[in-house]
Amino acid sequence: MATEAELKAAGDKYIPKDYDPTLYKLRHSLAHVLAQAVVEKFPQAKPTIGPPIEYGFYYDFDLDVNPTDGDLEWISNRMKQIIKGKYPFKVREISADEGRELFKDNPYKVELIDGLTKGKDEYGNEAATNPTITVYQQDTFTDLCRGPHVETTGNLDGKGFKITQVTGSYWRGDSKNKMLKRFHATAWANADDLKAHLARVEEAAKRDHRKIGRELDLFSNEQVFGAGFPMLLPKGATVRRLLEAFITDYERKAGYLHVYTPDAAKVELYKISGHWEHYKDSMFPQMDMGESGNENEDENLVLRPMCCPHHIQVFKSKPRSYRDLPIRIAELGKMYRYERSGVVGGLSRVRCMTLNDAHLFVRPDQIKGEIAGVLSLMKKAYADLGITEYRFRLSKNDDPATPLPPETKSKYADDPEMWESSIRILREALVESGLPFFEAWNEAAFYGPKVDVQVKDTMGREETLSTIQLDQHLPKQFKLEFKDSDDTPKRPVMIHRGVISTMERMMSYLIELYAGAFPVWLAPVQVAIVPIADRHFEFAQKLGDSLLEQDYRVDVDLGDKRMQAKIRDAQLQKVPYVLVVGDKEMEANAVAVRLRSGEDLGAKPVAEFVAMLEKVVRSRTLKLVP
Amino acid sequence: MATEAELKAAGDKYIPKDYDPTLYKLRHSLAHVLAQAVVEKFPQAKPTIGPPIEYGFYYDFDLDVNPTDGDLEWISNRMKQIIKGKYPFKVREISADEGRELFKDNPYKVELIDGLTKGKDEYGNEAATNPTITVYQQDTFTDLCRGPHVETTGNLDGKGFKITQVTGSYWRGDSKNKMLKRFHATAWANADDLKAHLARVEEAAKRDHRKIGRELDLFSNEQVFGAGFPMLLPKGATVRRLLEAFITDYERKAGYLHVYTPDAAKVELYKISGHWEHYKDSMFPQMDMGESGNENEDENLVLRPMCCPHHIQVFKSKPRSYRDLPIRIAELGKMYRYERSGVVGGLSRVRCMTLNDAHLFVRPDQIKGEIAGVLSLMKKAYADLGITEYRFRLSKNDDPATPLPPETKSKYADDPEMWESSIRILREALVESGLPFFEAWNEAAFYGPKVDVQVKDTMGREETLSTIQLDQHLPKQFKLEFKDSDDTPKRPVMIHRGVISTMERMMSYLIELYAGAFPVWLAPVQVAIVPIADRHFEFAQKLGDSLLEQDYRVDVDLGDKRMQAKIRDAQLQKVPYVLVVGDKEMEANAVAVRLRSGEDLGAKPVAEFVAMLEKVVRSRTLKLVP
Repeated sequence: MATEAELKAAGDKYIPKDYDPTLYKLRHSLAHVLAQAVVEKFPQAKPTIGPPIEYGFYYDFDLDVNPTDGDLEWISNRMKQIIKGKYPFKVREISADEGRELFKDNPYKVELIDGLTKGKDEYGNEAATNPTITVYQQDTFTDLCRGPHVETTGNLDGKGFKITQVTGSYWRGDSKNKMLKRFHATAWANADDLKAHLARVEEAAKRDHRKIGRELDLFSNEQVFGAGFPMLLPKGATVRRLLEAFITDYERKAGYLHVYTPDAAKVELYKISGHWEHYKDSMFPQMDMGESGNENEDENLVLRPMCCPHHIQVFKSKPRSYRDLPIRIAELGKMYRYERSGVVGGLSRVRCMTLNDAHLFVRPDQIKGEIAGVLSLMKKAYADLGITEYRFRLSKNDDPATPLPPETKSKYADDPEMWESSIRILREALVESGLPFFEAWNEAAFYGPKVDVQVKDTMGREETLSTIQLDQHLPKQFKLEFKDSDDTPKRPVMIHRGVISTMERMMSYLIELYAGAFPVWLAPVQVAIVPIADRHFEFAQKLGDSLLEQDYRVDVDLGDKRMQAKIRDAQLQKVPYVLVVGDKEMEANAVAVRLRSGEDLGAKPVAEFVAMLEKVVRSRTLKLVP
Repeated sequence: MATEAELKAAGDKYIPKDYDPTLYKLRHSLAHVLAQAVVEKFPQAKPTIGPPIEYGFYYDFDLDVNPTDGDLEWISNRMKQIIKGKYPFKVREISADEGRELFKDNPYKVELIDGLTKGKDEYGNEAATNPTITVYQQDTFTDLCRGPHVETTGNLDGKGFKITQVTGSYWRGDSKNKMLKRFHATAWANADDLKAHLARVEEAAKRDHRKIGRELDLFSNEQVFGAGFPMLLPKGATVRRLLEAFITDYERKAGYLHVYTPDAAKVELYKISGHWEHYKDSMFPQMDMGESGNENEDENLVLRPMCCPHHIQVFKSKPRSYRDLPIRIAELGKMYRYERSGVVGGLSRVRCMTLNDAHLFVRPDQIKGEIAGVLSLMKKAYADLGITEYRFRLSKNDDPATPLPPETKSKYADDPEMWESSIRILREALVESGLPFFEAWNEAAFYGPKVDVQVKDTMGREETLSTIQLDQHLPKQFKLEFKDSDDTPKRPVMIHRGVISTMERMMSYLIELYAGAFPVWLAPVQVAIVPIADRHFEFAQKLGDSLLEQDYRVDVDLGDKRMQAKIRDAQLQKVPYVLVVGDKEMEANAVAVRLRSGEDLGAKPVAEFVAMLEKVVRSRTLKLVP
């Protein structure tokens, strides 16, 4: 029989790798405190499960009333009292039968106990067989729980949490089951951390690319296209066109060769590459073209999950000599990735994406030089886009310190020597580039290690925006060769790289970075022209036509609203420059310039404004006045 | 019992609508003459079928020897003798049993007779039940045949045909059957027509975009991508990028709004649009995303066959007022079209294509003005591309003069009033534009009539390159509305248009039009730099870098071939300008300019050459010297 200390320590293994253990215990404990308060308020409520999640926790109850704001306030206050009571969290081991007796009025807990005896965890997933069943108790409240928890409720801060909302949620996430009431709360170590979090949430909501996307008519998600297939409306499409031209111009001048390869291929191709073995679950359904006649899966078509096997066909399209290398094949490559419809949304998580993709086929002696070239291209692009905060991660395969459970297949290609040498080369390239970086296990591609460029989103979460991958695996799978200077065949190495990420991802990132106020060179509309009265319409239209002819993006507002309303509309649409034209301006061939910030630059001759605009656009500055 | 004249006249109904009846009879008769000569040469040969095809005819024999060139010459000479014999083509009706007796040594003919009695034609397709069975005889040769034929072999011209080759061909096209020998011949009314045809074939072979595509490294068709999915290699991709920028720049300045919409949607969308009813056979297989849970076909995804239902979603994304119209939504739209793998090939017939697509949502009073605008944009684009020979076709729905067989569903939307008014409007627009045009039945889109722009291919065959379609059907299906000036809801009209066709089609057309020698503004490589000796490499490379920096497309040839070979290589690659640099040129900062035509422009200062290049590119001229 385990001691109480042993039982408590056992709970630690349930803390996820990337979760702060102190916050995990604190949030888990607050969930129990909330449950106690809820059943005190609503004695008929049946607690089900209540795990810590990002930023806080939730707890689901079978409860047939809708809690009012007053109820939530009562619960919140009661939680503070329980915290003040400094009640210890006591744990004890029970048998399944004891558990069934203890929770005989709560069929959910009984179902959980039954699951535990069958080797299922509380979500119904496979878990250890014959697990220890434990209950935790604080004050008057006892809950079926594996831990871990803080020592006493006194370790919690009554000012560090906030109940944010109550929503509906099906038992076990299955719409065939009963709809439960989910109490959501955010929880932190103290009042300051809570306040900082709430401020971040407020700021993130303002910058949310889905909200701004709607407000600025950038994109929309239509039900008829299916989940994860957003469409770019004209203004969003303009931003994307400019981003595409921006990065491919840089690439062309850096010696990249762009291609167009098909968005689909035969299943056979992905069997050779290994995607079928390592990546099939993320691929779209196969399409049987009804011609192979013998149900030959290899002949079926499938939308491509990545472009690498396609660019390999370009390399293979003719014999290559050592003089031809490096060959840098690039494409704005569309890729399809299967994800459940429930997890996709906006532009940031989609099922079809266009990557600023390239594959460099290089001689072994060219690897470091080419990686340095990619890093330099990337830094230049980031600077132009105004992305200043990022760090480099060397992403490696399985951590040898945490071996995989037996029978579990590694996500990574089985070739220890390749992993060792590829990781070493990437590390050396980073060291030589003088860029600070950190290393992480279990973040590689299946075919090789990566250098990832990590940025933070508006909530401060780190995510990968760009990537450089070293690949000795696919060249082997496809038996790639070039003729070396000594006339013998040699195997090239592949570098996979995406400099500005997928168009979708980069757009969602930039929308949030700029809060919708794009720099002038990227703004969907750069200039709004507002005539004061009908007699200025012609002048306004001519000015607009002339700017359009010079390839600027202009809206001439000939609507029937009043001038001030038109100016306000343009500024709400984050149009950098609003040009007001009336009698004085027409006479002097001038424009009165207002910025989207509200600043008034006064009247300027048209030529002077255009010269300023040209300078701002060409320099790709974030400022509106050079 | 029908008379011989009646039996002969009955054969006329088998002449396809678009086939010249004189040539059809002539070719059909020559097939019989060839068959007679073949069985005289090879008495063991069993004739099967021998129909007229484009440019000539073929005849398939069960024959186990490979005819030599000498055999073919003998057969050809024997045919000329038979022609000189002026033997009449005699027809008589026979019963199936007589036929089985007559052809008892030829199981193929017996199988055909059995088929006829079961209502199958010679290809095994459904035909009239209880047909008349006829045999035609000339000289000593009798063949099972429905006609029609010329009166006597004297109506044929012994100098008007040529046996071109003998290939293998399965009986009934089925690889489970025996491989037959197919004798191919081209046949014309006289020697001049034959000669003209052979010259066209020779010229077309030289210009064949598949051949030039290989020679100039423009594109390739890889088996692993599947049929109809060509990939554009770097040089072909450059042409496409330039074409895309060219047409979208024009469109942007003409007030088009470009979007990016998904390449797939739910089946539901195409049920609303009518594509599912009228176009399903040309669509790709559905993809079950495994989430609808109830085999709900509507929720399955399918790759889009056309962009119209997608652009309709853009129109519907917000309320529209009469002031907003016309709204011109454009996209380089990828579309998937199912065709059998046997009929696709090259760039001209593919399963995935990117159309320079747009849909104009207009008020009824704007239709003609917008069509005029599209015609003007099209003429401008064609002029820039050097396409000078084309004519306009008004393409209409079912011809009322040839009613559909009972039970046959029309390909066209069932709305006679819509067809009448749409055809009338298009005809008026064409008349008002002053452009000559002709009208054709059974060439419309399922939702409405079209104005097609017809060009000729290298063999002189007419095909459609661009199209303008008037559509009152989809706005009804999708219940589109705008608020009119009187505040009432009105229905817009849609104009579908493709100005420069699909990128694939236009590229294959242009490759053949230019025979691979692209005008300078479109050339994948504009300038080849050839240093005479190693000591000129650095100068050559610097010059190349400077031209690349100015966005010209340059190849610097630092290979180890001799100068003359390098110049020849560049000219074979149809690079417009070859710049040779040696001591004299380095000293004077000059280049010796050779054209791909072989012409030598002599030495020019670098600045002078660049100024010429800039002028030629900017003007989009087909000439190499302005």
